[in-house]
Amino acid sequence: MTKHEPDGAQNAGDAIAVEPVVTDLPGHRLVLGEIDPLRLASGQMLGPFTVAYQTYGTLNEDKSNAILVCHALTGDQYVAETHPVTGKDGWWGSIVGAGRTIDTDTYFVICINVLGGCMGTAGPKDIDPRTGAPFGLNFPVITIGDMVAAQKRVIEHLGIVKLFAVIGGSMGAMQALEWASRYPEMLFCAIPIAGAARHSAQNIAFHEVGRQAIMADPNWCGGAYYDRDLNPERGLAVARMAAHITYLSDSALHRKFGRNLQDRQKITFGFDADFQIESYLRHQGRSFVERFDANSYLYITRAMDYFDLAAEHNGQLPAAFEGSPVRFCLVSFTSDWLFPTAESRQIVHALNAVAASVSFVEIETDSGHDAFLLEEPEFFRILSGFLRGAADQYAQTMTGTNA
Amino acid sequence: MTKHEPDGAQNAGDAIAVEPVVTDLPGHRLVLGEIDPLRLASGQMLGPFTVAYQTYGTLNEDKSNAILVCHALTGDQYVAETHPVTGKDGWWGSIVGAGRTIDTDTYFVICINVLGGCMGTAGPKDIDPRTGAPFGLNFPVITIGDMVAAQKRVIEHLGIVKLFAVIGGSMGAMQALEWASRYPEMLFCAIPIAGAARHSAQNIAFHEVGRQAIMADPNWCGGAYYDRDLNPERGLAVARMAAHITYLSDSALHRKFGRNLQDRQKITFGFDADFQIESYLRHQGRSFVERFDANSYLYITRAMDYFDLAAEHNGQLPAAFEGSPVRFCLVSFTSDWLFPTAESRQIVHALNAVAASVSFVEIETDSGHDAFLLEEPEFFRILSGFLRGAADQYAQTMTGTNA
Repeated sequence: MTKHEPDGAQNAGDAIAVEPVVTDLPGHRLVLGEIDPLRLASGQMLGPFTVAYQTYGTLNEDKSNAILVCHALTGDQYVAETHPVTGKDGWWGSIVGAGRTIDTDTYFVICINVLGGCMGTAGPKDIDPRTGAPFGLNFPVITIGDMVAAQKRVIEHLGIVKLFAVIGGSMGAMQALEWASRYPEMLFCAIPIAGAARHSAQNIAFHEVGRQAIMADPNWCGGAYYDRDLNPERGLAVARMAAHITYLSDSALHRKFGRNLQDRQKITFGFDADFQIESYLRHQGRSFVERFDANSYLYITRAMDYFDLAAEHNGQLPAAFEGSPVRFCLVSFTSDWLFPTAESRQIVHALNAVAASVSFVEIETDSGHDAFLLEEPEFFRILSGFLRGAADQYAQTMTGTNA
Repeated sequence: MTKHEPDGAQNAGDAIAVEPVVTDLPGHRLVLGEIDPLRLASGQMLGPFTVAYQTYGTLNEDKSNAILVCHALTGDQYVAETHPVTGKDGWWGSIVGAGRTIDTDTYFVICINVLGGCMGTAGPKDIDPRTGAPFGLNFPVITIGDMVAAQKRVIEHLGIVKLFAVIGGSMGAMQALEWASRYPEMLFCAIPIAGAARHSAQNIAFHEVGRQAIMADPNWCGGAYYDRDLNPERGLAVARMAAHITYLSDSALHRKFGRNLQDRQKITFGFDADFQIESYLRHQGRSFVERFDANSYLYITRAMDYFDLAAEHNGQLPAAFEGSPVRFCLVSFTSDWLFPTAESRQIVHALNAVAASVSFVEIETDSGHDAFLLEEPEFFRILSGFLRGAADQYAQTMTGTNA
């Protein structure tokens, strides 16, 4: 896999390519918004701000083979390589890579750590230039739209006029929808997977539980824990545990764990992790805090809660896609109760209402929301087919805008 | 509503009726197990131990009109009267009362605070007679079977040879099933509502999140917070918030709250409770800690996790009901995802396999698990019909054992 090094020739005015200094995180970094700060949805101005991203494959001559992968709530830019912190495989290595469904021999894949994140892009753990101390809760609250606006600057910096595709699952699907709605001329197709056009009351509720768990941890210190050598890791672990249950399904949990005991023959009549599911959840909580910042969790969950594409268009979801030239491919999973099929179907109805090009498949699986991250042969097949068809169409309709 | 005062004539050998001393909680208390301690499932012996209960209606001459109501995880004995702590209506006042579905003009209704609870029955906040200090985690871990064994002693103390019915929702359903399985000769019918014969992996997972939230609270102090004037209320509130989501349904949350904002016109770009669902959940958490003990929450969730009727019978659920004379009426609710209909259906299959008398109804509602506590006319109608029919049968089969 070759890494693309942006030449900067078509950089946006104020983009500065920087090498990682503070940390040893692999990949690319840009400082953006020095001359032209980003106006956030809140009205606040953000700039300068750092954006960290990773690329796989090679951008072709006419810059027409770029696919932007948008990561989910706790994901990051390390899509298809060993994760620099956890040492685990990239989160979408099953789909993105040489010879894979999103073939990096053909496509130039970009993934950008979202605004508010903690893997190199500006977020609450960064230094606030105005105070010299970490932002904490002084970091501005951001939205999915703000994340996408920041991503757009990176794409412009790379000299890409039109992305071949924007794809993502879960919060990544929200970003793909926002991209299609906001910058329809900048992408040929959008592939929102296991997503929704707005965060449901139940999902806001689960996020609020996670946030309250973090804020209940005395080490959180109102978000100002960085300089005190503290970390609200117990609260963050509880937040992760609660969220993790929602990523799976009742039947997947039954299949994987059932009521099996963990390294014991009998229940112990105590509060140790008697059951495998308890041990598994505790492990999920513990390992998460090693790679994720608690304040970032607050900010990114909040961005998801605020996401409501229809509300941005006077309550009319079709208006978000009026006259859209974008080809849509939506995918949902039968056992996903966090972003159930009904949510994708609402988007399909809205797209149909404005005669947009849309295909929609619901995949039969018991793996729950996490199915988009797992080996799901039918999902891979659908995705391959759509990308192949879209590539043919794109070749036919290419007008040389990227040349 | 007249209160029954037990005359003690048929008391179990070591039962001592005591008036509330430590607290002003209304209702009855017994001290049991002084002479004959209770052998718990763990093998530990418990005794003496206090049991608090409440009654409604009048026990008839032949003691044949008693219905034992079993409460759920966070319920208590105040079924049909103003709650002494919260000042709210009794948790099942819609069903139990004069002229209601469970008519206290006809039936003598008993509800006993479960073992491990915090409303007068022995639990972790009580004084350990061996040390003179509160039990905390030295209280023995109890099971649904232990709760039922303690209840049996109260019923014996009241001189009741055979209960007309044992009824309960959620954990109350587990107790009703345990009663029917363990003491089939002691009840004429069992009505497990929104229950299961074993706690699922997903449900164990949610309980574990709640326990971890409590244990993560530094005020928990390993369970020894009572003497330090501390209370892990933030952890307990988070536990309650997470659990509360599971009691409702996605559609009920959508119907009740949707994405409506709380006392504001616009989102605030902050971490206040912008959405009504957030404000509602926070309120649920706050009000819960005023009436519930955190350690009791640990113990009772653990008892539910451990519940597995089939496992107690070599993995064969039908064996739990072999030859049972009990008439069963099971009820489930379509939108209940905590104790879904499939769980009730498994019990029905097991009962059919041993040719037990069973009727089963799934009620259409969008109210989720909490439906068993709410105004559900079809549920009330089913329950009335079953009780009427069972009462007729009981009158025919009465052999005077209670006389």
